[in-house]
Amino acid sequence: MKKDELRKFLEAVKSGSINVDDAVSKFEGMPFEDLGFARVDHHRALRSGLPEVIFCPGKTTSQVVDIFESLARKARPVLATRATEEVHSEIEERIPEVRYDPVARMAFLPDPEIDEKGLVVIASAGTADIPVAQEAAVTARLMGATVETFWDAGVAGIHRLLPKLELLREAKVIVVVAGMEGALPSVVAGLVDKPVLGVPTSVGYGVSFSGLTSLLTMLSSCAAGVSVVNIDNGFGAGYIAALINRGTC
Amino acid sequence: MKKDELRKFLEAVKSGSINVDDAVSKFEGMPFEDLGFARVDHHRALRSGLPEVIFCPGKTTSQVVDIFESLARKARPVLATRATEEVHSEIEERIPEVRYDPVARMAFLPDPEIDEKGLVVIASAGTADIPVAQEAAVTARLMGATVETFWDAGVAGIHRLLPKLELLREAKVIVVVAGMEGALPSVVAGLVDKPVLGVPTSVGYGVSFSGLTSLLTMLSSCAAGVSVVNIDNGFGAGYIAALINRGTC
Amino acid sequence: MKKDELRKFLEAVKSGSINVDDAVSKFEGMPFEDLGFARVDHHRALRSGLPEVIFCPGKTTSQVVDIFESLARKARPVLATRATEEVHSEIEERIPEVRYDPVARMAFLPDPEIDEKGLVVIASAGTADIPVAQEAAVTARLMGATVETFWDAGVAGIHRLLPKLELLREAKVIVVVAGMEGALPSVVAGLVDKPVLGVPTSVGYGVSFSGLTSLLTMLSSCAAGVSVVNIDNGFGAGYIAALINRGTC
Amino acid sequence: MKKDELRKFLEAVKSGSINVDDAVSKFEGMPFEDLGFARVDHHRALRSGLPEVIFCPGKTTSQVVDIFESLARKARPVLATRATEEVHSEIEERIPEVRYDPVARMAFLPDPEIDEKGLVVIASAGTADIPVAQEAAVTARLMGATVETFWDAGVAGIHRLLPKLELLREAKVIVVVAGMEGALPSVVAGLVDKPVLGVPTSVGYGVSFSGLTSLLTMLSSCAAGVSVVNIDNGFGAGYIAALINRGTC
Amino acid sequence: MKKDELRKFLEAVKSGSINVDDAVSKFEGMPFEDLGFARVDHHRALRSGLPEVIFCPGKTTSQVVDIFESLARKARPVLATRATEEVHSEIEERIPEVRYDPVARMAFLPDPEIDEKGLVVIASAGTADIPVAQEAAVTARLMGATVETFWDAGVAGIHRLLPKLELLREAKVIVVVAGMEGALPSVVAGLVDKPVLGVPTSVGYGVSFSGLTSLLTMLSSCAAGVSVVNIDNGFGAGYIAALINRGTC
Amino acid sequence: MKKDELRKFLEAVKSGSINVDDAVSKFEGMPFEDLGFARVDHHRALRSGLPEVIFCPGKTTSQVVDIFESLARKARPVLATRATEEVHSEIEERIPEVRYDPVARMAFLPDPEIDEKGLVVIASAGTADIPVAQEAAVTARLMGATVETFWDAGVAGIHRLLPKLELLREAKVIVVVAGMEGALPSVVAGLVDKPVLGVPTSVGYGVSFSGLTSLLTMLSSCAAGVSVVNIDNGFGAGYIAALINRGTC
Amino acid sequence: MKKDELRKFLEAVKSGSINVDDAVSKFEGMPFEDLGFARVDHHRALRSGLPEVIFCPGKTTSQVVDIFESLARKARPVLATRATEEVHSEIEERIPEVRYDPVARMAFLPDPEIDEKGLVVIASAGTADIPVAQEAAVTARLMGATVETFWDAGVAGIHRLLPKLELLREAKVIVVVAGMEGALPSVVAGLVDKPVLGVPTSVGYGVSFSGLTSLLTMLSSCAAGVSVVNIDNGFGAGYIAALINRGTC
Amino acid sequence: MKKDELRKFLEAVKSGSINVDDAVSKFEGMPFEDLGFARVDHHRALRSGLPEVIFCPGKTTSQVVDIFESLARKARPVLATRATEEVHSEIEERIPEVRYDPVARMAFLPDPEIDEKGLVVIASAGTADIPVAQEAAVTARLMGATVETFWDAGVAGIHRLLPKLELLREAKVIVVVAGMEGALPSVVAGLVDKPVLGVPTSVGYGVSFSGLTSLLTMLSSCAAGVSVVNIDNGFGAGYIAALINRGTC
Repeated sequence: MKKDELRKFLEAVKSGSINVDDAVSKFEGMPFEDLGFARVDHHRALRSGLPEVIFCPGKTTSQVVDIFESLARKARPVLATRATEEVHSEIEERIPEVRYDPVARMAFLPDPEIDEKGLVVIASAGTADIPVAQEAAVTARLMGATVETFWDAGVAGIHRLLPKLELLREAKVIVVVAGMEGALPSVVAGLVDKPVLGVPTSVGYGVSFSGLTSLLTMLSSCAAGVSVVNIDNGFGAGYIAALINRGTC
Repeated sequence: MKKDELRKFLEAVKSGSINVDDAVSKFEGMPFEDLGFARVDHHRALRSGLPEVIFCPGKTTSQVVDIFESLARKARPVLATRATEEVHSEIEERIPEVRYDPVARMAFLPDPEIDEKGLVVIASAGTADIPVAQEAAVTARLMGATVETFWDAGVAGIHRLLPKLELLREAKVIVVVAGMEGALPSVVAGLVDKPVLGVPTSVGYGVSFSGLTSLLTMLSSCAAGVSVVNIDNGFGAGYIAALINRGTC
Repeated sequence: MKKDELRKFLEAVKSGSINVDDAVSKFEGMPFEDLGFARVDHHRALRSGLPEVIFCPGKTTSQVVDIFESLARKARPVLATRATEEVHSEIEERIPEVRYDPVARMAFLPDPEIDEKGLVVIASAGTADIPVAQEAAVTARLMGATVETFWDAGVAGIHRLLPKLELLREAKVIVVVAGMEGALPSVVAGLVDKPVLGVPTSVGYGVSFSGLTSLLTMLSSCAAGVSVVNIDNGFGAGYIAALINRGTC
Repeated sequence: MKKDELRKFLEAVKSGSINVDDAVSKFEGMPFEDLGFARVDHHRALRSGLPEVIFCPGKTTSQVVDIFESLARKARPVLATRATEEVHSEIEERIPEVRYDPVARMAFLPDPEIDEKGLVVIASAGTADIPVAQEAAVTARLMGATVETFWDAGVAGIHRLLPKLELLREAKVIVVVAGMEGALPSVVAGLVDKPVLGVPTSVGYGVSFSGLTSLLTMLSSCAAGVSVVNIDNGFGAGYIAALINRGTC
Repeated sequence: MKKDELRKFLEAVKSGSINVDDAVSKFEGMPFEDLGFARVDHHRALRSGLPEVIFCPGKTTSQVVDIFESLARKARPVLATRATEEVHSEIEERIPEVRYDPVARMAFLPDPEIDEKGLVVIASAGTADIPVAQEAAVTARLMGATVETFWDAGVAGIHRLLPKLELLREAKVIVVVAGMEGALPSVVAGLVDKPVLGVPTSVGYGVSFSGLTSLLTMLSSCAAGVSVVNIDNGFGAGYIAALINRGTC
Repeated sequence: MKKDELRKFLEAVKSGSINVDDAVSKFEGMPFEDLGFARVDHHRALRSGLPEVIFCPGKTTSQVVDIFESLARKARPVLATRATEEVHSEIEERIPEVRYDPVARMAFLPDPEIDEKGLVVIASAGTADIPVAQEAAVTARLMGATVETFWDAGVAGIHRLLPKLELLREAKVIVVVAGMEGALPSVVAGLVDKPVLGVPTSVGYGVSFSGLTSLLTMLSSCAAGVSVVNIDNGFGAGYIAALINRGTC
Repeated sequence: MKKDELRKFLEAVKSGSINVDDAVSKFEGMPFEDLGFARVDHHRALRSGLPEVIFCPGKTTSQVVDIFESLARKARPVLATRATEEVHSEIEERIPEVRYDPVARMAFLPDPEIDEKGLVVIASAGTADIPVAQEAAVTARLMGATVETFWDAGVAGIHRLLPKLELLREAKVIVVVAGMEGALPSVVAGLVDKPVLGVPTSVGYGVSFSGLTSLLTMLSSCAAGVSVVNIDNGFGAGYIAALINRGTC
Repeated sequence: MKKDELRKFLEAVKSGSINVDDAVSKFEGMPFEDLGFARVDHHRALRSGLPEVIFCPGKTTSQVVDIFESLARKARPVLATRATEEVHSEIEERIPEVRYDPVARMAFLPDPEIDEKGLVVIASAGTADIPVAQEAAVTARLMGATVETFWDAGVAGIHRLLPKLELLREAKVIVVVAGMEGALPSVVAGLVDKPVLGVPTSVGYGVSFSGLTSLLTMLSSCAAGVSVVNIDNGFGAGYIAALINRGTC
């Protein structure tokens, strides 16, 4: 119930066009939950800049396309994660301006009113981690963050990380993507005093356990400053990074 | 090697007071690592406001007291986590102004030059989660964050969470501490668009697996916006929250 | 051995047409187990309304069809779970009245003598959880329960749950189906005083561990009132819900 | 806000003693959550017969006693689980009528207005499982269920179970408590068409893994009809059993 | 119902002292389960030589003593496993002839009518595995097996195993007890064509995981002929070995 | 070196046809290991009746056929496990008398000199467990055991087990094959005093964990008398059962 | 920056062709990390004999070929692991001298200046372990080690290991590759006083858990002298073995 | 049997003082295993420099003292690991020259004939890892290695590692001891081309899982050159390091 409606309702009580008993009944009948919904809804209306997201796996191409089209009518940005080329092509037939990042496997429509601000730095440990890192990068940009990336900075070649120190120090928040032993976030957090978001990836074999070891490493980090998201959750990391970055602008 | 020293050195080369061969030797003998160390060190000198921390378990009382005293001579704030009453008493004999939080089990010396700014909101799901939540609160305050807390907001009584919505929306970052099934961070992240730091606790029994279930729940959250730290790591969550909060001020 | 047969046997003893030694031998030779079987069997004959069920995975289409036809001759309802379209088509050629639910992937023959009574409410957290939830719904209906369902009520959007409170309070038993972090059953059980059956699903990725995290969350629930079945076991949840519902009618 | 208060408020609007603008402001200022709280609270006021419960581990004796006394002033039944003899003695000094079950380790105050109805049957597999089973029994009785129990019916001596078939068939719901390999719930659910609540216990050694194996066994049951609660969660099983039982009366 | 009783019952039917209707009723009223119980019971009466066993952990000393005394009145052998010296002393006060093996931690009363026959060979890999191995040895002897043992034959010193080949080849069944990496059963089964029972022990540290690694090693054995019991289950291994040994005599 | 060869060698020393230095050299050159090998080899020559086995997975069809043919030239029985129809056809082209069991997926050549003796009883809990059970049956028969089987005796229908009691009591050893919750071996071992070999299968879903739950259940059995082999290891169980059975004949 | 370059730079400072301010700027602009990189690089230039390695899985054939060609221009040896025949063929079109080992699945270009020295002995437990063992062998040879191998020396046939004792004693380091129960490294380390590198393989089924059991076994080894690499990591084992071997020459 | 004994035996055959039949019998009676034992024994006699080791946990003080004294009579060095102060004192009463390292918790008698050679470098990540690192250091020194150590070089302060590069490059083998996230071995192996032995420690909390995470990290290392021992196995690492080091001298 919007403020205007409430005012009209109360004026109707005052004027007697609704008598008090009916008004009480109407309040009783007006589910508590709807009031709640209205407030939350209003709140959601304020969430401009947050993407409406479709997680593609488990949906048919035509389902994804329908949902994408439906969201595109209402809001920007729109984002479909883990989208195949085929999904992109089908969307493009209906919405020609849709964009596609084949590395991140994302189809999306940016919000033209969002300017990129702040600085999110995204690093990946190995080349195989790049798709997840790129998913974070695209997500953060869609949500209004300036994003800088560098790949292949694994701890086995720590000297490749050092030239990036200046960049890391300028970041508002750093996303570090790593599979296998997942040690890079610890090293980065030991070098700079910025929030570091660790993203374990399922890259590796044997006791990498599809990302579990990398996850446990990041959570056990001896460096303060590292928080962690689910394995391969590039979208989640980009989303949180953009939230943190937005708070700083 | 500072800039001034470098200039003096190069001028000595130029003036001939050091000949080139000796200069080359000096460069060779000047370990690469020391240069590196110097830069990092300078960087560390800028880390004002970050606590020097002692993790007490596994150290004797006298070891903790010695380290605490040593750190206290150099910097503020100083922080000893998981400190017993006995540890506090012993420190107090040498440093009477030391403070102690018996719930968080922390002994500490604040930095008098730090003002509390921004807003970190810290929520705990159950009463048994309070010590971990309080550890986060003390840490964040020592690092310059204004902190608001509320306890006992578990998802089994979701109505207790709703009155806190306004507070949650004002936060720069939210720390949510929960054991057992650990669902609270998901619920909070679904209600507000702020970075949420989930802290699983070892509270629970049976398949709570000393916090593992709570951890997995938080990482699997269907709500975007949640990143997670190690089980019972209240210090880490408070540290990251303060870093994020500082970026917004 | 039925009562009539027993009577005839004892009368034959009495009349001497079977002498006592032969009768003892016959008793000895008559396996104890058959008596047992008879009683249990009689008991099973009373189990009207419980579906005869075929779990299709691992069986060939023709095996499923043969078993289905065989069961259909003896009893109603008949139910084949995780049945493909192909299985349904093949059954339909022999039993044209067979019905099929493509979402639940179930082929079935209802018992025309069963009326739907009571109320089982079935909720799912995400759209990907619907097939499991629908399996529970079809099962419970076949066993005589009135079933109401609502989908997509995940804890990340708790406001979507609140309008359903009235419905939940009217239920005799509630089935809550959730993958990923599996927090919904806790929230529901915190809101209403009804038995809640949690069904974890294998929906999710990374540390969702194919439903394990959701399962552990439900078992660790801080809300009393939640019991849990195996991952993706929509049939089992529907079966138990119908048993509980039947007890209330 | 109660109905009376609402009526008074609306009458004040009507009479003009509150003008419309102030009324709108008051509504705005009246947090949505409080309305919600009121409804839920009212709802909770209806939850007569559900115990107010204190989980003792992790609380000091004086904390437990204080909470117990506070709850005892407001409602019946009151229940403290996993309570030591010492806790009981301390409570008894203040509330002489408190009762104590040393096997279930529970201190409690029954609700004198509750009559025991229906039938909950509780079985345990081994003697070491009895404390958990007894916790379920006391809980269910406090919530108004007639409870019958039998112990030591493990699957290794299946013949000890068979004489209980008649009792099992009369139950509204059956709680089966088992450690080690946890097979008893499957066997019971194969014999009778009643909802079976499996309670794994931490009894066992080696690969019993403190109840995990028993839990997995129950969840993997080849018998339909078994749902499961957390390891050693006798309280939870008794609570759910009483909810189901109450629905049948 | 024993054979004699059945005969009397049928003769009573024949003679007319019980009429047929009453006989049918009596059969009906005679629970199926009792028949079952009788047969199983008879069967159990034949189980001479199988120990009546008390697993002491979780029982008070007086409970163990009472059960021991009760069993001792009915049968031989009697066996209490994981019994402390104190338990033994208490039993000895009432039953002076009780025997005690302090290594195996067992108190027992042999069956004087059992002669030791066949050959069970029991080997342990390390000295720390001896208590479990000795538990197997005492159990097998109580059940009538001739037992030979040798200790400290770990795979890291395979040459210590070779002098025992002749003995191993004479065995009817071999019990191999090993902690840490648990490789000994594979080696033994590769050398002789006898059934090998592997008993993993909780000896070890780190990734020995309290016997789990040893257990998995034995189950994964590349040598055919190894079956396995639970970790530290010396009693179980001795029991099975004695059953196999008895079959060969 | 056979006894005859040794005698000839020593006679050659005695006669001087080999001088002592050459004899010493020959002994030195005769590797210790070869002596060992010879003894073991002799020992292996006695292992008549033990199958030479090829585990097919991971080998090409032509590799399997070559190995099969090679083994067939030397010994009987020959056995290829987990063999496809194609493997069988290829072998048949070269060895027309090869036999094939499509359920057990085994190609084999029996030893015509082996008579079936004793009694191995093999039971399976569910129909999906039959291939593993049949693998055990074929293996045991090839090794000279009389084998009786019955399928579908799961604990959820315990009455189907009871008519088999007599058969179970006649067995020398019982193999029980079960997936899902794996409770059947416990029940069987509680009914009869025979060695029971539990074979967990990977049948099931969710927390069945591809046989792990069934395995843990069997190892945690509260019934003495159960030992266990690896998941799906029908061959291993049949092999051990035949070893035990052979000892009794 | 090489020594020569440094000397030229300092001479330019001395001669005044670079003034001091510019020199300071140049030093400042010359990132600390580059100095570091230079040293490490120089160090890497000394790493002659260490292969440049491409891990093929997850890369397209054309990606592998491009990287291989690029590395081949700079250095020898070049090594692509887990390379398909197709990858090899494509490389061969551009670099005809490329070699391929189909068992190890490696394409490689040896360094013609490396002579094989020392002795690395590589043993595998089963035939299915050979590809991993061969990967270790090819790697060690490319890095300049003389390599001797023997296959099929599993602990179930320990007599096949004994004839290799002399060879094992001559080795500088021993690589032992084993799946299933992974006991062979323990046995080898018990026989000889050489560093043993255990390589668990994913060979096996059931509780072999894709190599985890073998890994745990090797880590739990009761024989001192065994260190372990990741499951199936033949390359890593060969690499370390060659490093150790090189140190001895 | 030594060569001389063999010669005498064969000469006795030649001379007729032993006839051929007796000689054959003697050979037959002379167990194959003893020949084996002799060779291995001779081999063991060559193992000078390898410590005779007592693992103290699970042994009484007097047991340790007896074994220590017995070993001390035969050989040097002697080593008791995880020995308490009390154990040391008791040994000292009998063997005054025994030495004790309270950090490593080792009591030992060095071999006076061993000179320290080569270079083993041992690094630890955190101060809590020092006891394990020191155990490795003492072990390696007892076995003849020159050992250099440095502590507290965790990846969160990577700059502390860099000044040690020169030392690391001089090492023959490097032992890296780390708990928590265990990333240090990867970093070290990325910097130098030496064999790196990773030793995970049980230091940490939460998902450190008593060293498991550190272990998995080390095994998943993206840097070639790292092999790993069991958690907290400082002795094992020192032992292997000394073996490798000895090969280089």
